[in-house]
Order: sequence, then structure tokens, then C-alpha cells
Amino acid sequence: MERHFDEELNQLKKELLRMASLAEEAVAKAIKALEKRDESICRQVLAEEERINMLEIDIEEMCLRLLALRQPMAVDLRFITSAMKINNDLERIGDLAVNIAERTLDLLTEPLLKPLIDIPRMAMIVQGMVRDVLEAFIKGDSKLAREVCRRDDEVDNLNDQIFRELLTYMISDPKTIKRALDLILVARNLERVADHATNIGEDVFYLVEGRTIKHHIEEKQSDK
Amino acid sequence: MERHFDEELNQLKKELLRMASLAEEAVAKAIKALEKRDESICRQVLAEEERINMLEIDIEEMCLRLLALRQPMAVDLRFITSAMKINNDLERIGDLAVNIAERTLDLLTEPLLKPLIDIPRMAMIVQGMVRDVLEAFIKGDSKLAREVCRRDDEVDNLNDQIFRELLTYMISDPKTIKRALDLILVARNLERVADHATNIGEDVFYLVEGRTIKHHIEEKQSDK
Repeated sequence: MERHFDEELNQLKKELLRMASLAEEAVAKAIKALEKRDESICRQVLAEEERINMLEIDIEEMCLRLLALRQPMAVDLRFITSAMKINNDLERIGDLAVNIAERTLDLLTEPLLKPLIDIPRMAMIVQGMVRDVLEAFIKGDSKLAREVCRRDDEVDNLNDQIFRELLTYMISDPKTIKRALDLILVARNLERVADHATNIGEDVFYLVEGRTIKHHIEEKQSDK
Repeated sequence: MERHFDEELNQLKKELLRMASLAEEAVAKAIKALEKRDESICRQVLAEEERINMLEIDIEEMCLRLLALRQPMAVDLRFITSAMKINNDLERIGDLAVNIAERTLDLLTEPLLKPLIDIPRMAMIVQGMVRDVLEAFIKGDSKLAREVCRRDDEVDNLNDQIFRELLTYMISDPKTIKRALDLILVARNLERVADHATNIGEDVFYLVEGRTIKHHIEEKQSDK
């Protein structure tokens, strides 16, 4: 039975990795659609949301089944409850990619406001966070998890910078307002993807180390 | 032992209700601060975030302890895993209240853009959703849970309406842009609170009925 249980846990890991790559890919495609001004890629992102949603339900049921039938203790228990939370975060990342695709469809009805530089850069960082935090989960690498959480500040800074820049566009030319707003919301959706990756990172850290880096409790405790 | 376990589950319910009222109160205060243009209420919201964060950690540990020590089956197992997810959603509602308080602090540096009507209305609906969905959870009331999920559409519509109205302000007078943007983001934060309440409602429905209303699967299946 132990052996079988290990196989089941491996299966769960595999499914979560699949979920993560679907979510990451959705974000990547949404940003590619924005960069290339390509409606068909937007439509793809919208169409593929269903798969992510279905997979979320499958993974959740897999976790509940493992909890009910295997009655796992300690480490395995925490692993499965973390998997449930991570699954949830990944599904929401999929939703955010859909939001970006919808904003992009809106942006395609008007001419390009400005060449995009910071948003693709932000997207690269955010996708890396999703990828690396899942690797940290699978490998039980708390150092990598913490490092991913730290990247969140960089994303927040980029988001603020994008916001301020687009604000100046809007103020100097009211004709740009709608497009600038759409871009602000794209950046904000990316920032939320990074927040979910950070949540996952905090869960992984807790899972591996048995103590929390959530809410910067650690930094406060160590007077940093 | 059964008896003791029931007491523990009751304790968990009580703590979750406390968490929910802290989160709901944070949203209520943030909106009150916005309406009354009161900086000290904003500061209160920021100061009280810590309590919500600490309570989240306590509840999560309580759930893990129950799972590990009691090895619950079926209904109790699902109840506890749902409690973990709800706890997480409530903490994020607390974060959103903080975002609103921060936007409000920003808005206080400039004169009032317009009398607020739709945002307080939206806030009332959203707070009701948080309150009712927790009641649905505690009482196992799937009808109420589903009804709360339905209110999400009303919130989305109000959000769109607020967005469009503020957009016209911005376009007709660029001096209003910064303030209008802050109000758009306040509305968007409220909309996200409603999304979390809806997530909780979906979990409660699943917990009680054993089938999902997530992602409108049901509606699709019944051709509605």
C-alpha cells in the first residue's frame, strides 16, 4: 500500500505540473496576443480556459480521495492540503490570463498606443515565478520558494512604473485614456498572477520548513 | 472522542465566523473612510490587517491539527478542507480592504471628485455577500450559497457602470484622471471581494450538495 500511495502522490505532482503549465501558457499567450495584436490568439486563451477549469476539479477530487482513503499523516497530509491550495491559485492565474485576453480584444479595436516594453518584461518575470515556484514545490526547495516570493517586489515596482507612465499619457492626451486604462488593467492582472505565485511560494516554504514567511512575520521577528 | 471532535469543529466554525466578521468589517471601514474622507479610519484598517493575518495562520493550523489527529472521513473531511479554502479567501478579502484604504488615503490628498453613490451601494451588496455566504457555510445552506453566487453579476454590472461613468469624467476633464482612476480601483477591489465571496459560495454548495456550480458547469449541462 505504501508503494501505491507514493505512486498516487507522484500522479498528483504530475497533474499539478500540467495545471501549472496550462496556466503559465495561458498568461504567455495572452501577452503574445497583446504584443502581436493577434485576435486569434486571444480567442485561443478564452477557449482553453475550460480545460484549466476541468483540471482544477479533477485535481481537487484527487486530493480529497487521497485524504479520505489514505488518511495520510504529517508530511503527506501537509503536502496534499498544499496541493489543494496551489491548485486553486493556478486556476485563478488562468482566470487572470482570460482577463488579459479580454482587455487585449478591447485594445485591438483601436490603434497601438505605444510600443510595449515594460508589460512584456513584467510578463517574463511573472511567468518565471509561476514556473519556478512549481519547481520549488515539486522538489521541496524552500530556498527557491523564498527567492520567488522576493521577485514579487520587482513586479510591484514595474506595475507602479507602468501606472505612472500611462497616467502621463492620459493627462496629456484624453484620446489615449481608454487604451491607457486597458494597459493599466493588463499590468494589474499580471501583478495579481505574481501575487498568486507568491502565495504558492509561501505555502511551499511552510510545507518544507514548517514555519511561515507569510505576511513578512519572519522579517518582523528578526528586526529586519 | 466523537464528542470532543464535535466541539473542535464548533470551535473551528466560531473562529471562521470571527475571521469573516473581521474581514467584512475591514471592508466596511475602508468604504466608510472613503465616504467620510476620514484618514484615521484608513489608518485603523491598515493597523488591523495584522490581526486578520494572525488569525488566518491560527485557523490553518487548527485545520491541519484536526486532519492529522482526527483523521476525519467523508463529510467532516470536506468540511475541514473547505474551511481551509474559506480561511484563505477571507484573508485575501482583508488584503483588498487594505488596498481600498490605501487608495482612499491617496484620494484624501485632493478635493472630492463627485458625491459617491454607486460605490457605497456596491459595498453594501458585497458586504452582504460575505456575511451571507458564511452563514450558508455554517448552516450548510446550499440555496443561500447559490443565491450569494448569483449576486456576483449585480456587482459586476455596477463595476462596469462605475468604470464607464468615471471614464467620461476623465475624458472631459484631465484634471480628474488621477482621482477617477483611484475610484475605479476601489470599485475593482470591491468586485474582487465579491469574487472571493462567490468562491466561498461555490465551495459551500459543493460541500453540501456534492456537486459543483463552479465555472457554470451546471448551467451548461442543463442548457440554460
